[in-house]
Amino acid sequence: MKDATPPDFEAALRRKIDLKTKPQGALGRIEDLAASIARLQGTLSPRMESCELMLFAADHGIAAEGVSAYPQEVTRQMVLNFAAGGAAACVFARSLGLGLHVVNAGVKGGVFGMEGILDRPVAEGTASFLGGPAMTQVQVDQALATGGALATASTADALAFGEMGIGNTSSAVLIAHKMLGRPVADLVGRGTGLDDAGLARKRAVLERAAARTGDLDALNTLRHYGGFEIAMMAGAMIGAASRRQVVIVDGFIVTAAALLACAMEPAARAAMVFAHASAEPGHRAMTEALEARPLLDLDMRLGEGTGAALAWPLLRAAVDMLNGMASFDDAGVSGPV
Amino acid sequence: MKDATPPDFEAALRRKIDLKTKPQGALGRIEDLAASIARLQGTLSPRMESCELMLFAADHGIAAEGVSAYPQEVTRQMVLNFAAGGAAACVFARSLGLGLHVVNAGVKGGVFGMEGILDRPVAEGTASFLGGPAMTQVQVDQALATGGALATASTADALAFGEMGIGNTSSAVLIAHKMLGRPVADLVGRGTGLDDAGLARKRAVLERAAARTGDLDALNTLRHYGGFEIAMMAGAMIGAASRRQVVIVDGFIVTAAALLACAMEPAARAAMVFAHASAEPGHRAMTEALEARPLLDLDMRLGEGTGAALAWPLLRAAVDMLNGMASFDDAGVSGPV
Repeated sequence: MKDATPPDFEAALRRKIDLKTKPQGALGRIEDLAASIARLQGTLSPRMESCELMLFAADHGIAAEGVSAYPQEVTRQMVLNFAAGGAAACVFARSLGLGLHVVNAGVKGGVFGMEGILDRPVAEGTASFLGGPAMTQVQVDQALATGGALATASTADALAFGEMGIGNTSSAVLIAHKMLGRPVADLVGRGTGLDDAGLARKRAVLERAAARTGDLDALNTLRHYGGFEIAMMAGAMIGAASRRQVVIVDGFIVTAAALLACAMEPAARAAMVFAHASAEPGHRAMTEALEARPLLDLDMRLGEGTGAALAWPLLRAAVDMLNGMASFDDAGVSGPV
Repeated sequence: MKDATPPDFEAALRRKIDLKTKPQGALGRIEDLAASIARLQGTLSPRMESCELMLFAADHGIAAEGVSAYPQEVTRQMVLNFAAGGAAACVFARSLGLGLHVVNAGVKGGVFGMEGILDRPVAEGTASFLGGPAMTQVQVDQALATGGALATASTADALAFGEMGIGNTSSAVLIAHKMLGRPVADLVGRGTGLDDAGLARKRAVLERAAARTGDLDALNTLRHYGGFEIAMMAGAMIGAASRRQVVIVDGFIVTAAALLACAMEPAARAAMVFAHASAEPGHRAMTEALEARPLLDLDMRLGEGTGAALAWPLLRAAVDMLNGMASFDDAGVSGPV
C-alpha cells in the first residue's frame, strides 16, 4: 500500500488531465475513469496493464422452487464450458486480453479435479432460503476468506468479476431488498428469460422468502439469502480493494456482491468501476445506492463477467491517456482564444 | 466482392447465434453487431482482425468568422501532434491495436513532408461558405476520389474514421440542415467549448450561410458547406463499403460525412457501425435519420476518431463470439426447461 496522497494531489491530477491536448472535459467519462484509478493507486502515473476475470460458480437451493428458466444442472455444464473455453466470457477474455480464472465455489456434483477449474467448494450448493438461511455462519466465513485469498494471490492491476449459478438472480433480488429496503416487486426480473407466469411465480417465492426475516445487516443478509459465489466475490472485492487493485463490477449478481462488500468495508467502493447496466430492475436500484454509473449499456443480460471483459479496454485506454497523451506545452498546441 | 448471400442466409445466421451457450438474445447489441458484420461479409464466419483509423485533417474558411473556441492554427499543430503520437486518438489507437493513418486533406501552411503524415491536400483550406461555396466542383471530385483511393489501398477488415479541422462542426451543422431539412437552431452546438455568446454568434453565422442556398442534393451540400476532410471521408466510406470493409463512424463530423456518403451511395449504410453518441445536438438528428444507434455514450466530444477507437474491441469481440463460442450441442449444456 502506498502512502496517502498529498493534500494537493487532486489539484495536480486535475491539472495533468486539463493540460492534455484536448478541450477541457472533452474525453468525458474516460477522464473520470483515469482520475479514479489515479486516486486509487495514489499516483499521477497509474498502471493498468493486466486484468484477470474471476468467474465464480455455485449452486443455489432456491433453484428447486422453479425460479429459473434453466435446470440446475446447467451450472455444472457451464463450468465445464468455461474450462473448455467455449462460453461467452472465455471468448471475450481471449479477445480482449484478460486472464481467466474459473472458481468452483460450490457446484452440485462434487469437485471437478481438472485443469482450468479452481476447486474451492464450500458445499454442493446452498440450502433453499425459502425455509431457512442459505448458509451457515461457518460457510459464510469460509467463502469470504476464500475469496479474499484468491484476490490476494493475484498481482493483476484490475480484477473483473463474473458469476454463474442457476437461481442466483433470486439471491441478488433479496440482497437488494434487504440492503436497500425496496419492495421485492420493484426488484425482481426475468433472469435468463422467464415468461410472465414464471416471473409471477419467482416474485411470489421471493416475497415469501423475504417475509421470513426482518431487517438484516450485510453479513446476515449474505447468510440468509446469498450464495457461495456471491460471498466469495464480496470477499475477493474487499481483498482486492485493500491492495488497491481496481475491481470491475458487472451485472446484477456481481453488483449485489459489491453492495454487500461496500456495506462490510466502505473503503472498497473507491476501487470499483461499474461495467455494464443490467436489464434486471434491481440493478439500477443498487447502482443508484452505490452512486455508480455503468460504462456500457449494450442490452446484455448474460452475466459471466461478459460486460466487465468488454469494459476492460476502456480502463486501459483511460490510463494510457493519462500517461501517454501530450500536453499543450509538450506539443506546442495553442489553447482557446 | 463475394457472391450474394443465399436466401436462407438470415435463418442460418439467426440459428448460429441462437444455438450459442447463452439465453437467446442475452448478448444484446453484441449479437446484432456480429450479425451485421456477417451480413456485410456474406459469411457465417466473418473476419475482424485488423482495423485502421484514418484521421483526416483540413482547414475551413468559415473559421475566420469566429465560430470556434480555438484559433485556426490549432489544426496544423494538432496534425503534428498526431504525427508525434501525442494526441488522444494516437494513444487510443496504440492502446487498442488499431493502425493509424494521418491524412493532410488540406491544412493551411503547405505540405508537411514528414513521416507519419500522408500529404494529400486539395488546397490550403476551403473558402468561407458565408460568401459562396466552400469548394469548387473540381475540388469536391478530387477529395472524393482521394478518399476512395486511400480506402481501396487498405486491406484492413474495418476502417475507423476521425477528423481534425478547426471550424468543422459548423460544416457538419449545415450538412445536417440541408440534408435533413431541420432548422439550424436545432442542430448547432458548442463544438470544442464555445460559451453562450460564442454559441449565439456561431448560430447567427450559420443561419446567414444557410440562407444563401435553397434545397441542395448531397453533392451540392458537400460543395457549398463541406470541407476537404469531410469529402475525403465520404469518398473513403463509399470505397470501403463497396469492398465490404466495416466503416466505423464516430462523432458529429464523421456522421455528417456518413450522411452524405449514404445519400450518394445508399448501399454504404450496410457497412457502417456507429461508435459514440456526440453531445452535439445535430448528431442525434443525423443518427436518427440513418436509423443508427451508437454503441458507446461516454460523454466525449473530442472527435479525432477517439470514440471509433474505443468501439473497435467491441467489433472484434462480437465476431469472436460468432466464430469461437460453443453451441449448446458442442458443450453438452441443457436448454430452458
